[in-house]
Amino acid sequence: MIKFFLPLTFLIVLLSCTNTEKPLSNDLVKANWQETLPGIWKTVINKGETYNFIDQAPVAPKVEAIKKLGNSGFPLDKSSIEIKVINGKTYISLPLKKEEQIYGLGLNFKSLDQVGKVKRLHVDHYNHRDDGRTHAPVPFYVSSLGYGVFINSAQYIDVYVGTGVKKDNPDAPKPRDRNTDPNWESNPYSNAVEILIPSDKAEILVFEGETPMKVVQRFNLFFGGGVIPPKWGLGFWQRTPTLYNNKEVMKEISDFKEKNFPLDVIGLEPGWHSKSYPCTFEWDAERFPNPSQFINQVDNESVKLNLWCNPYVSPSSSMYDKLMPLSGSHKVWGGIVPDLNMEEARNIYGDHIMKNQISLGISGFKVDEVDGFDYWLWPDVATFPSGVSAEQTRQTYGLKFMDMVTDLYRKQNTRTYGLARANNAGGVAMPYALYNDQYAHQDFIAGLANSGFNGVLWEPEVRESDSAEEWLRRMQTSCLSPMAMINAWGSGTKPWSFPEVYEACQEIAYLRMQLLPYLYSSFSRYYFEGIPPFRAMALEDSYNSERKLIKKELDHTDNPYQQALLKENLTQYMMGDNIMVAPMFTGMKEREVILPKGRWFNFYTGSFMGDGEVITVAPPVNQIPLFVRDGGIIPMIPPIRQTSEWKEGTPLTLRVYGNAPAEFILYDDDGKSYDFEKGKYTTKLLKADKGVGQIKDLQNNSSWTYGEIHWEFMTKTNVPIK
Amino acid sequence: MIKFFLPLTFLIVLLSCTNTEKPLSNDLVKANWQETLPGIWKTVINKGETYNFIDQAPVAPKVEAIKKLGNSGFPLDKSSIEIKVINGKTYISLPLKKEEQIYGLGLNFKSLDQVGKVKRLHVDHYNHRDDGRTHAPVPFYVSSLGYGVFINSAQYIDVYVGTGVKKDNPDAPKPRDRNTDPNWESNPYSNAVEILIPSDKAEILVFEGETPMKVVQRFNLFFGGGVIPPKWGLGFWQRTPTLYNNKEVMKEISDFKEKNFPLDVIGLEPGWHSKSYPCTFEWDAERFPNPSQFINQVDNESVKLNLWCNPYVSPSSSMYDKLMPLSGSHKVWGGIVPDLNMEEARNIYGDHIMKNQISLGISGFKVDEVDGFDYWLWPDVATFPSGVSAEQTRQTYGLKFMDMVTDLYRKQNTRTYGLARANNAGGVAMPYALYNDQYAHQDFIAGLANSGFNGVLWEPEVRESDSAEEWLRRMQTSCLSPMAMINAWGSGTKPWSFPEVYEACQEIAYLRMQLLPYLYSSFSRYYFEGIPPFRAMALEDSYNSERKLIKKELDHTDNPYQQALLKENLTQYMMGDNIMVAPMFTGMKEREVILPKGRWFNFYTGSFMGDGEVITVAPPVNQIPLFVRDGGIIPMIPPIRQTSEWKEGTPLTLRVYGNAPAEFILYDDDGKSYDFEKGKYTTKLLKADKGVGQIKDLQNNSSWTYGEIHWEFMTKTNVPIK
Repeated sequence: MIKFFLPLTFLIVLLSCTNTEKPLSNDLVKANWQETLPGIWKTVINKGETYNFIDQAPVAPKVEAIKKLGNSGFPLDKSSIEIKVINGKTYISLPLKKEEQIYGLGLNFKSLDQVGKVKRLHVDHYNHRDDGRTHAPVPFYVSSLGYGVFINSAQYIDVYVGTGVKKDNPDAPKPRDRNTDPNWESNPYSNAVEILIPSDKAEILVFEGETPMKVVQRFNLFFGGGVIPPKWGLGFWQRTPTLYNNKEVMKEISDFKEKNFPLDVIGLEPGWHSKSYPCTFEWDAERFPNPSQFINQVDNESVKLNLWCNPYVSPSSSMYDKLMPLSGSHKVWGGIVPDLNMEEARNIYGDHIMKNQISLGISGFKVDEVDGFDYWLWPDVATFPSGVSAEQTRQTYGLKFMDMVTDLYRKQNTRTYGLARANNAGGVAMPYALYNDQYAHQDFIAGLANSGFNGVLWEPEVRESDSAEEWLRRMQTSCLSPMAMINAWGSGTKPWSFPEVYEACQEIAYLRMQLLPYLYSSFSRYYFEGIPPFRAMALEDSYNSERKLIKKELDHTDNPYQQALLKENLTQYMMGDNIMVAPMFTGMKEREVILPKGRWFNFYTGSFMGDGEVITVAPPVNQIPLFVRDGGIIPMIPPIRQTSEWKEGTPLTLRVYGNAPAEFILYDDDGKSYDFEKGKYTTKLLKADKGVGQIKDLQNNSSWTYGEIHWEFMTKTNVPIK
Repeated sequence: MIKFFLPLTFLIVLLSCTNTEKPLSNDLVKANWQETLPGIWKTVINKGETYNFIDQAPVAPKVEAIKKLGNSGFPLDKSSIEIKVINGKTYISLPLKKEEQIYGLGLNFKSLDQVGKVKRLHVDHYNHRDDGRTHAPVPFYVSSLGYGVFINSAQYIDVYVGTGVKKDNPDAPKPRDRNTDPNWESNPYSNAVEILIPSDKAEILVFEGETPMKVVQRFNLFFGGGVIPPKWGLGFWQRTPTLYNNKEVMKEISDFKEKNFPLDVIGLEPGWHSKSYPCTFEWDAERFPNPSQFINQVDNESVKLNLWCNPYVSPSSSMYDKLMPLSGSHKVWGGIVPDLNMEEARNIYGDHIMKNQISLGISGFKVDEVDGFDYWLWPDVATFPSGVSAEQTRQTYGLKFMDMVTDLYRKQNTRTYGLARANNAGGVAMPYALYNDQYAHQDFIAGLANSGFNGVLWEPEVRESDSAEEWLRRMQTSCLSPMAMINAWGSGTKPWSFPEVYEACQEIAYLRMQLLPYLYSSFSRYYFEGIPPFRAMALEDSYNSERKLIKKELDHTDNPYQQALLKENLTQYMMGDNIMVAPMFTGMKEREVILPKGRWFNFYTGSFMGDGEVITVAPPVNQIPLFVRDGGIIPMIPPIRQTSEWKEGTPLTLRVYGNAPAEFILYDDDGKSYDFEKGKYTTKLLKADKGVGQIKDLQNNSSWTYGEIHWEFMTKTNVPIK
């Protein structure tokens, strides 16, 4: 629970004079914006909702880091924000400029800019539409103009992002005759983002930021900053098929060794529980007769074990009877739904997991089915003993489960890293990547871009493929994501399932391992500064994110309203501060890449690629197009198979790209405990200019040091500034 | 306004003893079921919602007709209905048996049985999912066991149709291990339909019925019974392209005459208004310089004119300023949204339409864009001067507009018939067929089947086609629907656009004209008895509507939960009591037809086709498969081009099918006024047995009579009873 806000705002109900055009203006509520932290203002209506994201947040704000972001004052015209309370609901209208873009409002997969969309934010399995139903429907948006808005409500919130045009809007486009005026628009400009909260209690927060990135940072830091996964979490993951037993798992591990493919984590899918769907969280005696011995065996191979689960408890579990009175009114697949808003339920559940899995050495969980679908989970008419509504429970169940498990690991000062199918506001510090069953490669990449707006991590897993080409393309992006993973639960695929591309798969997996220092440092910025390690180009200051509309021909069956198509850059993303990824998809021989302003260089060769322009690349099949910014330093280690090899004496190569003076903060720590939170970490300031590099220790608290450090200046030519 | 209910139920809040499994049982509300009309019970919670469908219903119940349906008492176990009020919301749980099917809950296009679905009933353009967003999201369901439930709320209602399994459900399926038990189900049986009303005020009605059909009848009669369209409305409709002028329209009419194709109505699409999107409801002076003269000219050709519109009023309209203070807070395409819940707004709007269109002889309207999408219409945060919420206004806007227009016609004792894109509960008496932009032929037919559960008419229009075959297939079904229409607004297509199938198109259009006495009599049953003229097979008493599930293979990307597929009969429907339609779709050379129990005969030949079995038919391309029940009488007239030819002296053929004793009530009236409501109509009881027919006048109040009447016994052989 975070308790740092100022006393509650006094609410003044404005009884303003009515006129015919504003008949309900007496429902207007005067907002009293109070700055709660530098650059973060809130207004509270009717004391706010009792159950909300801020009170439930697992981690406290990073106040000092927020202060460092600067603050140039309330970013909006206060008089342009209108709040009404009508019949028990709160209506909010926030200003929207004509060229403004609105990002966030949940983990989207088809779009970045949400203007023109109507969204009902609702935790669910993503269902092919950016309509608010998604794995992380975070009620937060960031504007391209550099501010953010957060609604502190765990109810389903309706958001109209520049759709409705208000009658009293002085900037409303003039009506046009659709039949004779080619400039008629199906979606005319609206000057507002309008929000409906189904409660007369509400809390709205506004985040300032010089740039959209600063806003995202402030939001992330407000909820405690991002996660630094344990090092093993950034190695390669393989999830074995359903019903695999201990011997099959050991065989899988040895196959990886024999085939010389990276492997840090084995994920066990359904079959390790004695029963699942619903689950027991007790080992199956036949497939895993001696879990402790098995886990040690795996550990001896320097491999961690992650366990699939869903949180619905089977009657065959020994915790079932105890949890029964502490669970919701409805079952899921015959399992009870423990009320994770009750401490007693969390304790029983946590003790059971601690005793049966964590204490034996299990490294973490994959939390399935905390998202949807509606027809599987509890209905909104379900009740829970805590009194928290079914709706609020749905919105936060993934978050609560992750929090419960993370707390258990924290108690033994061990980091965990896992997967979950739902997160929400306040979950930025949760060491979990989101995933789903959707499996559309392009959407997976758009998810990576979008994740950065919402304070979540997204994992574009590989399951199977129709062709070797697709397999490779998917492997390339999975290896350049928060979690490099094959999920072979149903297919039994291996990295070598398509022999013709196996070498290329090895290449990209080993490249990921070489990039570990860079990745790890990028995650440290997530933690310390709130900068998402994976994010859309729109968060780059130098990126031109002007809205591009493509006018469409009228089609009287398929597009009867001649809606324009928004052309967005959904296929590029930043990995850390210096590397831009522009994946190739199946069937592509070449692709366009939009280079932000500033010089950009080929990651593989160091050669100049362009500056603020659209280029076409046609890379060899084994190379995913990667671009490094001018003055980008990429710290790399030799190709290792397991993160355990990243240790005392590991040589370090510092690649430098371009001609501009370069700087990078290299981060390191023990890679597994929470000691870094107490200052036990190392940061080195790397600087390079004109072929000369230097290293300065900023903080030196690690237990080990790199071996030989080698500067490699990748760019040989001097490119004139445009 | 209907005012016939008994005084309000006293609410007793049961403070039952709590136990750990039912922690919130003190929120339970005791229902007091009162029979308001024979076989119709209601319970009211906290006085019910102020704005609701029953109070807003345009037509009063047909009490006498309801009485005739019989009544065998409250159809459910009252103790199995649970109502709770929690935090301002009403939670309702109604029983659901294992094999029970639930129909209705809106105009669906992909399914009939709604069990297993979660729906949020919300007026919208149908968007390819039966999720409650549709053109008529009627909060009413009818059970295959013969009862119905209606929620009298114009808010968005959430319905969980047998999805959530309650913890205290004694019939809950036992949990299974998904990995080892092949009988694991992704959707285990739930014993409840659960409903969430976002209000602490609610009204629930239960409808009794010996059969699902009786329930539907009772529901339809409760809202006044169905519509009898004017006769011209059942002729052929052609909608001319956007921006057509008076001369082009006259040319179209003469082309139809020359080509010898039926034509009763010309629909004018955008372009007749001086401005549209938003609309003026004033004639364009260039395209229609003399509307009155033009309408008379059209009338001289025995053709009616229907006008496209949407209700959003352009600033260029002379009624704009007057309506401005009586309109909602938001605009649609720059037009104001008159608050049709304000009498003053309706009067201004109605006067304008009366003066400019109706009084000149316009026969009706096509009411566009009263459904959605959300990003075009007003947001739920809009406000309206009547104080009715944006949500309730959205749910009823189509209904209100139809009601306003119908009232104008009623004032001059003229029937209208038109199209609208939204309807809802209480709109069964509205003389409008629903339509949309979806244009999927199979879905259109499923819509016809579904319409009968919801008290609405659905029109599967023809726009264009990729092939002559598709054109014909679509023409065939449009001609066997509530409205036979080509909507050529964008394509400019004509019935002869595909010359290779023109004769076949003529055939089906003329067949519709021949069937007019049958169709008109079927509509009379809609009016008098609430029997939908177009409906799903499941409403046939002899139809076996057992649920059929097809077990699917596990697909770890496309069907990871191995969900079974529901096999439903979405491609057959009843037209009136005697004709079953089983359309052919593009690409089909043959098709399966499910024949209900009882002997069925080929409409074209009279030959026996089968009895309670699945047959395969491979008809000639010009024939849409039509089946007539045993003892079915089909009254037909000669092929006429216009309904004006259906008059004094028209000969009548009475086709008789099968061997069973046959009966049919032939209905007739003046075809245009409301005089039939005062008894000015004719009904004749047609009876036939063993090759002998007889006619008995039941009521004889028509102004004209048929000429020669000829009995035609289609079935020559005696088919033994199975």
